[in-house]
Amino acid sequence: MKTAVTPTREEDFSSWYQEVIRLADLAEHAPVRGCMIIKPNGYAIWENIQREMDRRFREKGVQNAYFPLFIPLSFFEKEANHVEGFATETAVVTHTRLTKTSDGKLIPDSPLEEALVVRPTSEMIIGASFAKWVQSYRDLPLKINQWANVVRWEMRPRLFLRTAEFLWQEGHTAHATGEEAQNLALEMLDLYANFAEEMLAIPAIRGEKSEGERFPGAQNTYTFEAMMQDGKALQMGTSHYMGTNFAKASEIKFLDAEGNQTYAHTTSWGTTTRMIGAMIMTHGDDNGIRLPPRIASQQVAIIPFALKEEDKKPTIEYCRKLQKELSHLSYFGSPLRAFVDERDERAGEKSWDAVKKGYPIRIEIGPRDIENDKVLLFLRTKDKKEKIELSRNEVGHKIASYLDQIHQELYDQALSFRNKRINKVESLDQFARLFQEESRENCFVLAPFGGDRALEEKIKKEHGVTVRCFPFEQEKSDAPCLFTKCKGVKCAIFAKAY
Amino acid sequence: MKTAVTPTREEDFSSWYQEVIRLADLAEHAPVRGCMIIKPNGYAIWENIQREMDRRFREKGVQNAYFPLFIPLSFFEKEANHVEGFATETAVVTHTRLTKTSDGKLIPDSPLEEALVVRPTSEMIIGASFAKWVQSYRDLPLKINQWANVVRWEMRPRLFLRTAEFLWQEGHTAHATGEEAQNLALEMLDLYANFAEEMLAIPAIRGEKSEGERFPGAQNTYTFEAMMQDGKALQMGTSHYMGTNFAKASEIKFLDAEGNQTYAHTTSWGTTTRMIGAMIMTHGDDNGIRLPPRIASQQVAIIPFALKEEDKKPTIEYCRKLQKELSHLSYFGSPLRAFVDERDERAGEKSWDAVKKGYPIRIEIGPRDIENDKVLLFLRTKDKKEKIELSRNEVGHKIASYLDQIHQELYDQALSFRNKRINKVESLDQFARLFQEESRENCFVLAPFGGDRALEEKIKKEHGVTVRCFPFEQEKSDAPCLFTKCKGVKCAIFAKAY
Repeated sequence: MKTAVTPTREEDFSSWYQEVIRLADLAEHAPVRGCMIIKPNGYAIWENIQREMDRRFREKGVQNAYFPLFIPLSFFEKEANHVEGFATETAVVTHTRLTKTSDGKLIPDSPLEEALVVRPTSEMIIGASFAKWVQSYRDLPLKINQWANVVRWEMRPRLFLRTAEFLWQEGHTAHATGEEAQNLALEMLDLYANFAEEMLAIPAIRGEKSEGERFPGAQNTYTFEAMMQDGKALQMGTSHYMGTNFAKASEIKFLDAEGNQTYAHTTSWGTTTRMIGAMIMTHGDDNGIRLPPRIASQQVAIIPFALKEEDKKPTIEYCRKLQKELSHLSYFGSPLRAFVDERDERAGEKSWDAVKKGYPIRIEIGPRDIENDKVLLFLRTKDKKEKIELSRNEVGHKIASYLDQIHQELYDQALSFRNKRINKVESLDQFARLFQEESRENCFVLAPFGGDRALEEKIKKEHGVTVRCFPFEQEKSDAPCLFTKCKGVKCAIFAKAY
Repeated sequence: MKTAVTPTREEDFSSWYQEVIRLADLAEHAPVRGCMIIKPNGYAIWENIQREMDRRFREKGVQNAYFPLFIPLSFFEKEANHVEGFATETAVVTHTRLTKTSDGKLIPDSPLEEALVVRPTSEMIIGASFAKWVQSYRDLPLKINQWANVVRWEMRPRLFLRTAEFLWQEGHTAHATGEEAQNLALEMLDLYANFAEEMLAIPAIRGEKSEGERFPGAQNTYTFEAMMQDGKALQMGTSHYMGTNFAKASEIKFLDAEGNQTYAHTTSWGTTTRMIGAMIMTHGDDNGIRLPPRIASQQVAIIPFALKEEDKKPTIEYCRKLQKELSHLSYFGSPLRAFVDERDERAGEKSWDAVKKGYPIRIEIGPRDIENDKVLLFLRTKDKKEKIELSRNEVGHKIASYLDQIHQELYDQALSFRNKRINKVESLDQFARLFQEESRENCFVLAPFGGDRALEEKIKKEHGVTVRCFPFEQEKSDAPCLFTKCKGVKCAIFAKAY
């Protein structure tokens, strides 16, 4: 059977991914090395993600603010692990002017006394503000978020997954006690994972990062990880408990209730446009992207199917009325997003386009349907030709439940795909086999692990896999570490990862 | 009478402005030279501006997208006027790594082959995309907007008015004909000016920029200008018709209906966080900011007035119920924004704080009011002690009309202030006198003008004023240019400006 996407997932997952993005018109590589242009179809998804995530942040008492793009080098240096983690991939501003040379070329001029780093993350610059804003225990907790662009220089860009510049949100909080801060970090991780499940239809494994995968400078890093359809892991976002490391680096101190100067405990947590990449690789099929209904740029595509010239105008009018009716409905707190594809193209083309763009529901309406008071519905999770016949009046009543159904189908498919590919492993041999056989599909391996950073490095080198996390949900087991044989360890998930 | 702000507007407008921002907790200077931190109270205003402006853009068929922060130097060079306009104030990225020297200092490393300019505006990078996206007349018009940060190096920063980095939206469109493009540029200017009037309560003069004040590379620049309370002008936003200048620089060509390759006509238009500065300087009084209700971070501050310990809890409960009721109302398309000030401080302090933060309506509720089923309302546009007594049931019904009333009062006051300070001038003497006398207040001068860029320079040097615009609304007049004596000219507005 011919598919809309060539190659298929089976044939070449990585090229399939690129092609899905192109067909859905989501994004493209920029002429600036490593950067991405997010096109309207892709950006609309990001806006929907932002709106709902922001709403959830507010419920937690988080306030939005905005901090500078540039971080003075001296700030950046304050936390040793932090600077080491980001130094090899930062864009550095060194000049503030361009001058023409005698042969007419533009060159940088007016060198800065102190170079500025384009933020790869904002702990140090937000920390400086927190140090000013936090004076007494009454100022705590302080919960701030910013929606911003960040830059991490990247030589092998992949759209949405790894680009030199990307969009994200970064939350930063300060607390009086470590316990409160740690709880907040866990709470935000939970918010993220729930968001992934409820809005993106992506089942997420919640867990803690190992030493080797921790955020530079953090005490604990929590993560939620998803399995892509090539069996690789994708880290969808992280939440960090910093202890007092960053408070000490930035001098975030407060007078506690007993009158002592105390360092605050801080957290940070972030998610990025990468979630769109995860969505594509979790739900896409060989006909293109399948958008999870709740963040879809359009939830319903209405396609007028009129062949005769005289039918065209009344059919479009009829479609517009339906569109108007639907857009007055509310779905997950927003007006339902429906549009009429009025482009001057063949209706069959438009149907395929709706499939490739991944709109959850496609409605086709021709003159005969209008006569018979019928509407044909097609769900993106079903075969392209599998239709549902509704009477015109039913559409408004039933559309939300069809969207919910699609959401559930996407989620269930992803969950069952993942669960089939999680292998509990009890021997080193088995571990090596699962990750060595080139012919086999990738998978997650769950195994008891008690190693340190050095061992993680060794495993990465030998097997090409990393510790994704120690899942919060652990089965009771006394099994010793697969590698060190030490006892009393937790199970970790190992996988190839994006 | 003691005022909350020291100094007053009269005493020192510039220090008053800084102090108003500090008291309302809107923003502060960043440790990075020239940059600003937008604090939650300030950022909430920006979010309200964004939401409503974005809604209006969508109605015009504009789509949001996102383009790279960095512009390769070679792109930047393509339009000669453009590069000249921005070259002296750009941040330039030259390195992509930091390395430790032997003495432990971090220095920039890995120099880029081609330096990158941090976008001061995105014509050239968006133009490169438009060149790819526009192939045929069917692809036109193309209407794109992005919400983003931009950087224009600035040595004398002023919060919201002039900072090295600022937030803005920039719209970019391409059209088949010059007429259509020019109309779009005018339409967007109109959208902006209506927004200023309807949402910010700022009366705006719509007009066209003179040659000397035009956007670098534009054919026409349209502007909307407002008068601040020190009599200076503030350009609130601009909309440019580029002709085919930028299309030629970026090779934006299309196959027209007749099959000819033709250059597109483009526009761009932008507004920034500067609008918040305009709002402060238009509406603030000597007790602080007065927020225009429709974009206010909070529209209603509810203050529990209970002195006795046993009254506190029930009073707060009562206030919360009112808050809940109000926040279920809708005002200008959003849920009404009301909060209860539950901080453990004296109620009188909180009243003053609500004044300084500029919330349009303050509601004070004490145990006696609860008993009598009364609620005391205070409007920010009235004297602090002037109260309106309502029965509890009336509040919900009347709150929107009070907000409208405050909006109208702010607008009317600003309009009358401005109109009193516009002087029609018919002699050079008078012109010189109005701008020379140091003791007098600043003003706008309306005078016939037919000069060129050189004359504008001369006037600026001699009188310290610029041509703000040729207002669209012109009275019929045959008066010759005040300076050149040439006939058939339009009247221009001259003023000192931010």
